[in-house]
Amino acid sequence: MDRVLYPGSFDPVTNGHMNIIERCAAKFDEVIVAVAVNLEKEALFTVEERVELLRESCAALKNVKADHFTGLLVDYARAQGANLIVKGLRAVSDFEFELQMALMNRRLAPNLDTIFMMTDGEYSFLSSSIVQEVARHGGSVTNLVPPIVEERLRQKLSAGC
Amino acid sequence: MDRVLYPGSFDPVTNGHMNIIERCAAKFDEVIVAVAVNLEKEALFTVEERVELLRESCAALKNVKADHFTGLLVDYARAQGANLIVKGLRAVSDFEFELQMALMNRRLAPNLDTIFMMTDGEYSFLSSSIVQEVARHGGSVTNLVPPIVEERLRQKLSAGC
Amino acid sequence: MDRVLYPGSFDPVTNGHMNIIERCAAKFDEVIVAVAVNLEKEALFTVEERVELLRESCAALKNVKADHFTGLLVDYARAQGANLIVKGLRAVSDFEFELQMALMNRRLAPNLDTIFMMTDGEYSFLSSSIVQEVARHGGSVTNLVPPIVEERLRQKLSAGC
Amino acid sequence: MDRVLYPGSFDPVTNGHMNIIERCAAKFDEVIVAVAVNLEKEALFTVEERVELLRESCAALKNVKADHFTGLLVDYARAQGANLIVKGLRAVSDFEFELQMALMNRRLAPNLDTIFMMTDGEYSFLSSSIVQEVARHGGSVTNLVPPIVEERLRQKLSAGC
Amino acid sequence: MDRVLYPGSFDPVTNGHMNIIERCAAKFDEVIVAVAVNLEKEALFTVEERVELLRESCAALKNVKADHFTGLLVDYARAQGANLIVKGLRAVSDFEFELQMALMNRRLAPNLDTIFMMTDGEYSFLSSSIVQEVARHGGSVTNLVPPIVEERLRQKLSAGC
Amino acid sequence: MDRVLYPGSFDPVTNGHMNIIERCAAKFDEVIVAVAVNLEKEALFTVEERVELLRESCAALKNVKADHFTGLLVDYARAQGANLIVKGLRAVSDFEFELQMALMNRRLAPNLDTIFMMTDGEYSFLSSSIVQEVARHGGSVTNLVPPIVEERLRQKLSAGC
Repeated sequence: MDRVLYPGSFDPVTNGHMNIIERCAAKFDEVIVAVAVNLEKEALFTVEERVELLRESCAALKNVKADHFTGLLVDYARAQGANLIVKGLRAVSDFEFELQMALMNRRLAPNLDTIFMMTDGEYSFLSSSIVQEVARHGGSVTNLVPPIVEERLRQKLSAGC
Repeated sequence: MDRVLYPGSFDPVTNGHMNIIERCAAKFDEVIVAVAVNLEKEALFTVEERVELLRESCAALKNVKADHFTGLLVDYARAQGANLIVKGLRAVSDFEFELQMALMNRRLAPNLDTIFMMTDGEYSFLSSSIVQEVARHGGSVTNLVPPIVEERLRQKLSAGC
Repeated sequence: MDRVLYPGSFDPVTNGHMNIIERCAAKFDEVIVAVAVNLEKEALFTVEERVELLRESCAALKNVKADHFTGLLVDYARAQGANLIVKGLRAVSDFEFELQMALMNRRLAPNLDTIFMMTDGEYSFLSSSIVQEVARHGGSVTNLVPPIVEERLRQKLSAGC
Repeated sequence: MDRVLYPGSFDPVTNGHMNIIERCAAKFDEVIVAVAVNLEKEALFTVEERVELLRESCAALKNVKADHFTGLLVDYARAQGANLIVKGLRAVSDFEFELQMALMNRRLAPNLDTIFMMTDGEYSFLSSSIVQEVARHGGSVTNLVPPIVEERLRQKLSAGC
Repeated sequence: MDRVLYPGSFDPVTNGHMNIIERCAAKFDEVIVAVAVNLEKEALFTVEERVELLRESCAALKNVKADHFTGLLVDYARAQGANLIVKGLRAVSDFEFELQMALMNRRLAPNLDTIFMMTDGEYSFLSSSIVQEVARHGGSVTNLVPPIVEERLRQKLSAGC
Repeated sequence: MDRVLYPGSFDPVTNGHMNIIERCAAKFDEVIVAVAVNLEKEALFTVEERVELLRESCAALKNVKADHFTGLLVDYARAQGANLIVKGLRAVSDFEFELQMALMNRRLAPNLDTIFMMTDGEYSFLSSSIVQEVARHGGSVTNLVPPIVEERLRQKLSAGC
């Protein structure tokens, strides 16, 4: 049985992330989508909010579970019994960083492997930070994020964040 | 059950290819390694020789099968009942071409998906063409290709090709 | 008045090219789409056929004219009274080559300038050569090229080319 | 009439920026050079100082106007009646970010289009931040920035900033 | 006599840096490895600690000297009588930044030149920041850094940094 | 004593190559500029002509010698007593190919090392093939190649090549 782990910041989850999650859900037995807790990086949504948004966005996908983790990715993967890590690739700049992380992770855990999926064309230049920036300046993010995320973004930003 | 398809020219198979094949064999139920017949590109080994070299190099991997195909990759994948295509990524220049092919293939066959694996560091700058060039000029390709390929390369090139 | 020149091989014109042509037609007074004759590169369609396909594909755009040229691009631009060259950018590999050509052209003709437009996301990984390859293997190119090009591609390839 | 908008941080304007501004001024009817106010990014010069330096540097270019804006670029462009956005490209790393922004902006404002110009060779590796760093350590920035900018940089940095 | 200067942050020195240092020590008469003091960037180790770690790691290389500098690199190089700067290149993203710095440095000091060496394959995706991150989360960095660095990293991080 | 080897096609030598040769001549004791004989690639100038053009272009540089070689670069370097290979880098696309070759060459000859120099800004987008193309279409290549090369290019191309 393949249990794949899809880690990320998901601040917030976008339709580009959903594209990867849905494709994984169709190909693998179980998918764990996990928010990596990074205390050094400021985030718009809290870890709990990000996990909750993932959970609601993935409610229709029965083999997908949302979670968060601290510490090394490979330790979390091992604890969860995941045998594959999935990462989305959009651009050349992603590629080099992800290659570095994949090689390091194979060194730390040789039995765990990383696979990459190319984000579909229409989402290929979409990122959480560009979504945040558009929303912050009052632009519409409809079709860029799941409806629940669009709503929470509006609430969060009107709350003066 | 996951039946993955790993297509390529394999002219000849290198240890970089073997690294991807072995990692796939450990993660997926069945792996088909298939030589793409491209009549417009000159090759050193014939299609039959390339399939044979793959077969011998993969003899110890029980869930790996070597084959060749003509026509569209997605048609061959469908005929073989493969649900995932695997491609190795080594460098930025691979990345853009493979992204183009992956997006086109998803358009031609939406149920088929492509995953990418990063070639391990030590093989990351190894290619069939650089192996051919080194061998042609009398350099040693030990540890760059499987032993059977090293032997056949020597025979092929001493035969005046 | 801005007369812009959009040069290329157009073997054949794709919807990615049409995306650039339509955007130029909306912004500039006149657009000349010109097939660069390159005797060293084998083409599927003749120069005349490529110009004809451009002409039919652009029939609804009144300020667009299709043509071909030999010799230096800057000499042709000057002869046509064009003051801007337009090039489409899809990927990093385009970028470096086009930068080289743009700098050389500015050196050869300082009054002529080159502007670049990014091909829209959905066409960003579409090229004439990938269209040729899909068509050659019997895949559908609907929505990748204008209808007239789809038809001529089928005729051309069934004629045993 | 073409009214083009050239947005940026301009902290401070360099000769690389001036190269783009002069080329735009020669090709288009009106050019608006606009400092994007980004409260999250620390700047060396205030917004007002940056606009003033642009104004003095562009004094000889009669169809160029300097300004600043907050909020979404597309909203500002619409308010100004600009129909084209101009961005300079120097390197591959610019390319991917700018492609992302251009695609997002076309989605937010389909009638507005972005064109790119390659910075001329001699300025292609010049940036505001490298100018700041050289000046901060006492290096000469003559020929890297307009004379007025060189003078203000010296004043600003000797003031203990 | 060739005196080469290898500048960097070295926070801390990794086996990737050592690979470049050893190769320089084998080819050039004298090698100065110098920590660039950058007050704006937060570091894990102090400048003194970083120089000390370099010194201990390079103890066996008789023609290598560790040092630190403030101000412009070219001024320090001149003061030390170095005629070549050495930089390691690992990835495309290094390449563009280093090209920018090399061109700027040649402008500031035409008699000084920069040469680049490619980090060997096995270290090509190793960086100080990835080492810090792995160590911070309790992963092993054996074989990624010299033994003395591994020990100090453990002490530093257990001290609650 | 440092004897460096600068290999290439030099079909023909450009001012970009000359920029690297002159910088090497200023830093190293001896420089061998060597035309790599590649029978599979069509060339405009013969090997003998290319060596002769190098010789005449470098006549003023007393520690530079022009030559040609067949076979593996590392074997030729060893035979000449060269301890460093020099390659010029212009663009990202150069970078990946040269990295592959450098790693392969270190594997074939561990005592030989490769250093890279960035071509100066004004020549950074100049190549032998773009020079050939401009000259073939009657454009001026003054300042792009040494005067002797400009003259021979004109003769060669008017001879109906």
